[in-house]
Amino acid sequence: MRIAVDAMGGDHAPAAPVEGALLAAREYGVSVVLVGQPEAVERELARHDITGLSVEIEPASQVIEMDESPALAVRAKPDSSMVVGMKLLKAGRADGFFSAGNTGGVLAAAIFHLGRIKGIKRPALSTIFPTMTGHCLLLDVGANAEVKPEFLVQFALMGHVYADRVLGRPAPRVGLVSNGEEESKGPPVVQEAHRLLKQAGEINFIGNVEGKDIPAGLADVVVTDGFTGNVIIKLAEGLGSLMKQLIREELTRDPLSMAGALLSKRAFNRLSRRTDYSVYGGAPLLGVNGVVIIGHGRSNPVAVKNGVRVAKTAVEQEVVPTIREGWRTMAQAVMAPAAG
Amino acid sequence: MRIAVDAMGGDHAPAAPVEGALLAAREYGVSVVLVGQPEAVERELARHDITGLSVEIEPASQVIEMDESPALAVRAKPDSSMVVGMKLLKAGRADGFFSAGNTGGVLAAAIFHLGRIKGIKRPALSTIFPTMTGHCLLLDVGANAEVKPEFLVQFALMGHVYADRVLGRPAPRVGLVSNGEEESKGPPVVQEAHRLLKQAGEINFIGNVEGKDIPAGLADVVVTDGFTGNVIIKLAEGLGSLMKQLIREELTRDPLSMAGALLSKRAFNRLSRRTDYSVYGGAPLLGVNGVVIIGHGRSNPVAVKNGVRVAKTAVEQEVVPTIREGWRTMAQAVMAPAAG
Repeated sequence: MRIAVDAMGGDHAPAAPVEGALLAAREYGVSVVLVGQPEAVERELARHDITGLSVEIEPASQVIEMDESPALAVRAKPDSSMVVGMKLLKAGRADGFFSAGNTGGVLAAAIFHLGRIKGIKRPALSTIFPTMTGHCLLLDVGANAEVKPEFLVQFALMGHVYADRVLGRPAPRVGLVSNGEEESKGPPVVQEAHRLLKQAGEINFIGNVEGKDIPAGLADVVVTDGFTGNVIIKLAEGLGSLMKQLIREELTRDPLSMAGALLSKRAFNRLSRRTDYSVYGGAPLLGVNGVVIIGHGRSNPVAVKNGVRVAKTAVEQEVVPTIREGWRTMAQAVMAPAAG
Repeated sequence: MRIAVDAMGGDHAPAAPVEGALLAAREYGVSVVLVGQPEAVERELARHDITGLSVEIEPASQVIEMDESPALAVRAKPDSSMVVGMKLLKAGRADGFFSAGNTGGVLAAAIFHLGRIKGIKRPALSTIFPTMTGHCLLLDVGANAEVKPEFLVQFALMGHVYADRVLGRPAPRVGLVSNGEEESKGPPVVQEAHRLLKQAGEINFIGNVEGKDIPAGLADVVVTDGFTGNVIIKLAEGLGSLMKQLIREELTRDPLSMAGALLSKRAFNRLSRRTDYSVYGGAPLLGVNGVVIIGHGRSNPVAVKNGVRVAKTAVEQEVVPTIREGWRTMAQAVMAPAAG
């Protein structure tokens, strides 16, 4: 098993991805291919003991920065770490690819160089979202601002496969985001996707989920368009910051509360660990011809290590061929009347 | 100034709306008209000293329940408190109407019996959303699952007028929800609304806002379609519950943290007051021919009192005629090329 890691991707590159890849190589016994500028990567490698680890460098002279326009950057920088990583996957020289870099860049590079899984109209970006009971997989979170009903059905299938195979949720509960539980809620595209999903026997479709149902943990897989999904993840991020600031302000407003906060420090530390993205490592870009895991831009070495683990599991569990086969079956059963 | 109050609306009706209306009559010197079943309302009134207050009962024999289908209920119950309240407004026998009842019912009754402001295509439900710096007005939060660019422009205008006149924000910053700051982000309907809003000189349009920008307080008025708006408010509600549960779980996990939490009790009480909806009382249904304020279903007497205050301010500040006049001017300046 060989996992390629974008050594130049993320706010703490190349240090964090290199260290994380090495942690993964040691802990999971995978071979890691560090894709990036050789001098920069070698400088980082020199700071670690890599005895006994299977580590290679794949040179890539260019870097796609976090704030670059994705589509342009991918064309303008054919020797960037993202593009080179995708080419490794395509050529079968790596089994999976992890990047904590520019999300749009990873998406564009994957679509351009790996291509879509046969039958899948649009790849989807996913994320791991916290819930009362643990977490769920939310998709799409930004690849497709506009969708057709069929896209949403495909997102549901892909999320189903990933949750079942990688997140360890057999027969995952799949919900469709809407502004009410009833089938008649939402714009026509959501209503039609609801109708199609009800017919998809392979999927444990639980119906519509409202905004409050997502953190409540009603669904294992939450399906929506990339516009709404993007608003959801960014709002959650913003509300998290708001809560933190309000709590901090109130806890420091009187001496008794301040003392209390000091005593409760361990509880607050546990709390921030529970909502820490780095445990999950990353979330898949689903629908392309290869295992691509995207990490948070702020990924630390532990997050990268876990991202490599997630990639390894997705490869072992044959996520890509299962989606391909799953869609073949489903397209016949569900979409045939619409297509005919 | 006469404000009608739906005495049968909300989880704590008729006790909470009756008590809240009396508090408002005393504090703000308004006349209140309690719309509802006379025996039920009189029973509540008997529990309070109403000496010196201007209080009337307007009989309405029917009640639209919280879980009823709005459009059907409004037709099937012509003598419901909501419908009777709207008719009072229409006849000029009340200047404003407050209800904490079934939101969809209020919306349907208002559209049916008050009608839309001339030129306004679709009324919008709004809500007061908490931010780092206080709060903002968010609309639409559920009246229109699907929108056209012109609807979003009208929501922006109506939000602008309300924030300026009632929330005390001169030249309020108006933002359009999208999945990125750039003008090119979002589905075509959002891109087109962005283009139109840039031309609307009357409005202080700050461009697109992302999910995280809303709680950050970047905008005073946040404009979106009713599908996205509904997901936003319900997600915020769900995340609030999630955070509360996680904090409670962690604070009770070890004795030191528990002791700390006890000491910090005052801080947590202040925190819940800061995020308490009842201070705002309610948010307007904008775009109909009358001042209609919708309160939270859980409204307590203080929330109802504040809802009446908000209705009074909206009447005094001439929100409805200002929207009518504002749209007349804007339609000529902004929409003319599209319409021509």
